[in-house]
Amino acid sequence: MNSMKPQSTERRVKRVGMVIRLRPECVAEYRALHADSHPGVRDLLAKYHLENFSIFLRRIGQEWFEFAYYEYTGADFAADMAALAREPRNQAWLEVCDPMQLPLDGETGWAVMEQVYYNCGADPL
Amino acid sequence: MNSMKPQSTERRVKRVGMVIRLRPECVAEYRALHADSHPGVRDLLAKYHLENFSIFLRRIGQEWFEFAYYEYTGADFAADMAALAREPRNQAWLEVCDPMQLPLDGETGWAVMEQVYYNCGADPL
Repeated sequence: MNSMKPQSTERRVKRVGMVIRLRPECVAEYRALHADSHPGVRDLLAKYHLENFSIFLRRIGQEWFEFAYYEYTGADFAADMAALAREPRNQAWLEVCDPMQLPLDGETGWAVMEQVYYNCGADPL
Repeated sequence: MNSMKPQSTERRVKRVGMVIRLRPECVAEYRALHADSHPGVRDLLAKYHLENFSIFLRRIGQEWFEFAYYEYTGADFAADMAALAREPRNQAWLEVCDPMQLPLDGETGWAVMEQVYYNCGADPL
């Protein structure tokens, strides 16, 4: 019943959930910028092993929040994150997105969340 | 560059992100209840094709929030959700969890979020 233990055929995966505020006046622009036809930095995410990456939006009270989920499948998370941060095209992308966002108190960017549950759920066959 | 289009070998997947408030006084109990050694309703999630299911916690200001992410891989989402809701063991589980949670304004349970971005990121080889 211990679903956290990867099966022998499963890749090692680090699942990351993050949250940040989105300025209400930027919701439409953020949506358009992330529409599927926009290449953004998709290729760079793949290059540094950030897979299955989703961003969701939700208004809570008078505020808007973004929630991101992705799976890191590489061998050195810190090194890959540092290399991604050095990519000029990623820096240019963040210069567009960062001003739309308001980090949570005490944060300078996306706030990493605590994972309390995981269930693979895949057919074990 | 259009990563939303599933590759021919990829299963059809509906990605769902949800959010709900967690009563601050229930955070420790919720964590323990969802710890990996607790079977919960993991088998029922698998039975109804809810895969790769994660729950994350985060305090925002004075409030606590839960964020859930899962992938539905079945053929009839509404029918599977209805069947899951009829499972007595799922009902018993919700009777434990529901009192710990505070739905967002206008919601009666988990609030579904709007997905604005997806990137597979997997090596296309």
